[in-house]
Order: sequence, then structure tokens, then C-alpha cells
Amino acid sequence: MKIFVDQEKQRQHFPSGFLVNGVVQPNPEKPERMDRLLEGVARGGHEICAPKDHGMDPLAAVHTPAYLKFLSTVYTRWQRIPDATPEIFPNIHPDRRTASYPLSAVGQAGYHITDMSCPIGAHTWESSRWSANCAVSAAQAVEGGDQFAYALCRPPGHHCFTDLAGGFCYLNNSAIAAQYLRKSHDRVAIIDVDLHHGNGTQGIFYERSDVYTLSIHADPARFYPFFWGHAHERGEGAGFGYNLNIPLPRGTGDEGFMKGLSDGLEHIKAFAPSAVVIALGLDAFEGDPFGGLGVSTPGFTQMAKMLAALNVPAVIVQEGGYLCDELGGNLYAFLVGYEGGA
Amino acid sequence: MKIFVDQEKQRQHFPSGFLVNGVVQPNPEKPERMDRLLEGVARGGHEICAPKDHGMDPLAAVHTPAYLKFLSTVYTRWQRIPDATPEIFPNIHPDRRTASYPLSAVGQAGYHITDMSCPIGAHTWESSRWSANCAVSAAQAVEGGDQFAYALCRPPGHHCFTDLAGGFCYLNNSAIAAQYLRKSHDRVAIIDVDLHHGNGTQGIFYERSDVYTLSIHADPARFYPFFWGHAHERGEGAGFGYNLNIPLPRGTGDEGFMKGLSDGLEHIKAFAPSAVVIALGLDAFEGDPFGGLGVSTPGFTQMAKMLAALNVPAVIVQEGGYLCDELGGNLYAFLVGYEGGA
Repeated sequence: MKIFVDQEKQRQHFPSGFLVNGVVQPNPEKPERMDRLLEGVARGGHEICAPKDHGMDPLAAVHTPAYLKFLSTVYTRWQRIPDATPEIFPNIHPDRRTASYPLSAVGQAGYHITDMSCPIGAHTWESSRWSANCAVSAAQAVEGGDQFAYALCRPPGHHCFTDLAGGFCYLNNSAIAAQYLRKSHDRVAIIDVDLHHGNGTQGIFYERSDVYTLSIHADPARFYPFFWGHAHERGEGAGFGYNLNIPLPRGTGDEGFMKGLSDGLEHIKAFAPSAVVIALGLDAFEGDPFGGLGVSTPGFTQMAKMLAALNVPAVIVQEGGYLCDELGGNLYAFLVGYEGGA
Repeated sequence: MKIFVDQEKQRQHFPSGFLVNGVVQPNPEKPERMDRLLEGVARGGHEICAPKDHGMDPLAAVHTPAYLKFLSTVYTRWQRIPDATPEIFPNIHPDRRTASYPLSAVGQAGYHITDMSCPIGAHTWESSRWSANCAVSAAQAVEGGDQFAYALCRPPGHHCFTDLAGGFCYLNNSAIAAQYLRKSHDRVAIIDVDLHHGNGTQGIFYERSDVYTLSIHADPARFYPFFWGHAHERGEGAGFGYNLNIPLPRGTGDEGFMKGLSDGLEHIKAFAPSAVVIALGLDAFEGDPFGGLGVSTPGFTQMAKMLAALNVPAVIVQEGGYLCDELGGNLYAFLVGYEGGA
């Protein structure tokens, strides 16, 4: 399987902290995640490929101009504020039902960053851009005839909306890949198996029927991202009926996860997509530091086989999954399962 | 003039910090503000009155049940979270266009607190409740025949929406007073002269034509509250044409302020309210630590005379105004101006 990654450029983004229950803690979305994931890639003997620079076009197909302008310029502007921190943290967030758009970097930071896990540093834009380039390059490989390809996206993407960073995510790599696939596919599905609900992905396609969004995740009633991922969220307008959330009780293990996934895949089959994006979080793992679900390492192989059995071209996009001894092993387990099952 | 304040209960809320440009700084909305304001009251020889406890009724007429339940219970719930800070700080904020309501204290904190200036401590609910009781008691005095009365509200209120704390504000005292006055007045106007736009007040009445909201303030394009207070915001639905913002360039002094206020008062006269609420921030002062506008101490007297010349019953509600030597003197200057001009 082709593996797309730019180790140098994607490694530079190194967010310092994030706020949890009022306390600033070290940000778990560290560059070291790439090393662990690459161990899994090496073990599988996959082909590592350099992503191309696809420029602004695939990003602008998903994200708003104001947001991309913000993300690419705010670091420089923030540095002009006297006594500001080196990284950008927002402090005021609008109720978007009535908000006007402000001129200042501080106002825009709150407008475009939904939570306290997304500091923007000197290299955030470049690393995010190259993370997205991996997703597009993998999609391009699939368009070129590969049955599947894997994008080692870091930073991840699925919590990012059209104009709103969140949950360690700045550009929505899975959505960008899906939108890219839409050029030659009428119907594309995104299947999100990350521990956390893919709220940004859902939001981007919430009023559309051409991209089906399925997410299976820990119940958000008492878990990040809290406001989205509930079973009653089914899409709006033209998109009503084209979003499906399968929230699982905390601690759900392999059996419950595969049951939920199996139900979800029935809906995917009924949608009959000609290509899929798999938003591959590995944090549903029983040993992940977030501790939300209880999927085992063999569980990732099983999950991959179920997904591969859809038998449609697939772009596999890395989402979450945090530092633990098995992080690379879980990626290995998934990718061999996928290749074996396809 | 009757002055409503409960020194003991309103003093207990003592927020620690707030986040500015990524840096945690001491929260300027300190109990000491009451001492300074009371110096101004004493100098004017006004009659200090104890507010009554008006219970939930006047609060529920303005704020949502979910918000009041949150505000009155979240402190206890937050204490059960392992390793949480003593005060509640939010860390994730929804795009409310699509958000579902979460169960957890962390999720609800982000849903109901829009910025990082509103920590909720053990006494926040009681102090806020008694601050609102002052506003209702002053409104009751005016209903009882007084031409004007002053509520020494602390914490302040005008940045608080129906279900959203912000800008040191937890209950919208001015809105609560205006809604109370609506019992016997068909048309009530709120005139907000605080340095900062009264975004919460605007939001509460944005779709209503029975309460006119006028705010004169530093231009929010590069100033708190950023997302609201722009001249193009004129209300929506039935409320279209019943909200007026007069943003002033940073540093505007007496002449520019009075010119803007004079323009605004022409609109108020055309609305012909039979009662008004004056949201009295004193932070437009040239020496206020926020440094946004340049109103002088005699300017507050002039402003008060212009407002009193409307010659309708008025509830004067304290909003912002932060620690500086002239804080009490500016309140004194306003109140004598108001009494002299009425």
C-alpha cells in the first residue's frame, strides 16, 4: 500500500498545551506520534511516497476563504500584539447565529478556533498544509487506479469545520480527500472510526447528499466533542438522512464496536458509494491515553476487514490515536487487515 | 436617589483570572469596585436601600431554564471532576447553529460561557442573583413612583445573553430590569453607555420591537466583544430597526461621545418609550484601565444631563468601570448630573 507522508514538514507543528477541566496540560498531539505510526508502516513493508504540493485548490474546495486567510496569516499578526504568548490561544467565542466578523487577530482567533486544544504556532499552517497534501496525494493515487492508499496525516483533521479549528485539527484532511474524490465519483462516503465523533466532517457535509458521513465513537453526552455526535443528528436540508452517528457507551470493546460498525456499513451499502474515505483514528484502542473505548489490536484487523469488504476504492486518512506502546502496532494491524480483506 | 446594593452578598464573587492574548492575568472585576462606587454614592448623600429577594421570576423572564439550572448547579458538579480547577473555565465552545446540548459539566461550561473572563466560583451564583435583585428592586422603586433609581450591580450584566455568560457577566441585570418594566410599559428602551458594546442585551432583544436597544461604545472591529456592536446590526425579524449601535473610534473624547449620544437619543425619542434603563458603564473614562475611550469626569455629568432630559422614569444599572482613582468620582458626577438634569 502507498503511504503518503512528509516527515520533515509535518513534524514542525508542535503545540505546547491544551486546557482540560481548567488545567493546562501538555498537548498530546505530538510529532512523536509520527514516529510510532511510521514504525507500523515499516513493519508492514509499505511503500512510502512523498506527497505533492497541491496548492490551495483542494483546501478551498472545503474551507472558507476567510478561514484559510486566517490560518495562513494569523501567526504573524498575533506576534505584533504586545506581551502576547508565542502561540495563539483564543479567549472569546461567538454565538455564530448572530455574530459579525471582526478585524482583529484576537477576535478572529475566537471566531475560527472552537476550543483550547488548537494553539497556532509558527509552523502550524505549513504542517497542516502538508498533512492535507498527503490526503490529496492518496486520493490521487486511488483516482489513478490504486484500490487503496494511506495518508499519514498529522496534524489530524476530522474536528475541523469549514471555518473552525478544533480538537488538534486545522484542515479537515478526510473531507478534503472526499471532496477531491467527488471529481470522478457521484457518491462518496466517509467512515469515521476514531474514538471521537468526526464533528467537523459532519458539519462540512451536513446539508449535502453527495457525501455520506458515518461516525462511530464514544457517546458525546459526556465526552469530547460534547455538542455533536448524538444519534438524533441526521443532517439538514438536502443532507437530511445522509449523516449517521453511532455513539457507543464508554468502554465498549471489540464485540460492541464491530456490531455498531456492521450496522453502519449496512447504511453505507444502501448509499452505494463508488469511493470511500476511512477516517482512521486509532484511539478507540483499549490502551489509548484517552481511555474512551476498548478496541483491541486484533480488533483493528477485524475492523479493517469489514471495511475492505465494501470493495470500493478507499483513501485511508489518519486521524487520532495517541502515544502508547501499541500505536504503531495498531496501524500495522489495521493495514494488514485491510490488504488481506480487500 | 435610591441606591440598591447588598454589599455582603455581592462581594463574595471573586474571580481569579482571565485570559488576554494567551496570558492569564488577574481578573479586573474585583469586589473592590464596589468600595469605589460606594465612595461616589456616599459623596452624593444618596439613600442606600437593601434589595429584596425577587426569586427566580424576573430571571426566568430573560434567561433560559437550561442556563439558570447550569449557573445555579455547575459549581457543585464541577467539583466532582478529578483534578479540576476550583473555578470553572470552559475549554470547548459550540458553533450554535448545529450544536446539541451535552450532559457533562465540561460540555455545558463551554455551551454557556462564551469567553475566558467568566470563571464560576462557589459564590458566583449568589452574587449574581443579588446583583440582579438590585436591578429589579430599582425597577420596582421606579414603578412605585420614583423618577429614577440606581442599582449598584456587581457583577455586571450587559455581556450576558439569554443562555450565555461573557465579559464578567452572568445575569443580564439591565435586560432583567427592562423586562420587569415591561409589565406596566408598552415600550422600554435600554441605553448602554458602557465602553464595551452591550452584546448580551442586544442579543436578548434582537428579534423584539417592544424593547429598543441602543449602545454607544468603542468600535468592536478591534475591541471586545469583537463579534457584535457593529453599525450594520439593526435587529432581526420583528426586531429589525429596534437595535442601534454607535461605534466610536478608539480614544474618542467628550465631544465625539456626546455627538454620538445625541444622535442616538433622537432615535430613542422617536421610539417614545415610557421608561428607560440606563446601562451605566463608567469605563468610557479616559483614565479607565481598559483605555478605550476618552470621556472626562465632567463628561459623565454632561452625559447624565442629556439622558435625564428624556424626562421618562429611569432605572440606572451599573455595568463596567474598573479600578482607578476616579471610579467613585465618576459615579458621583453622573448621579448629580442626572438629578440636576431631570
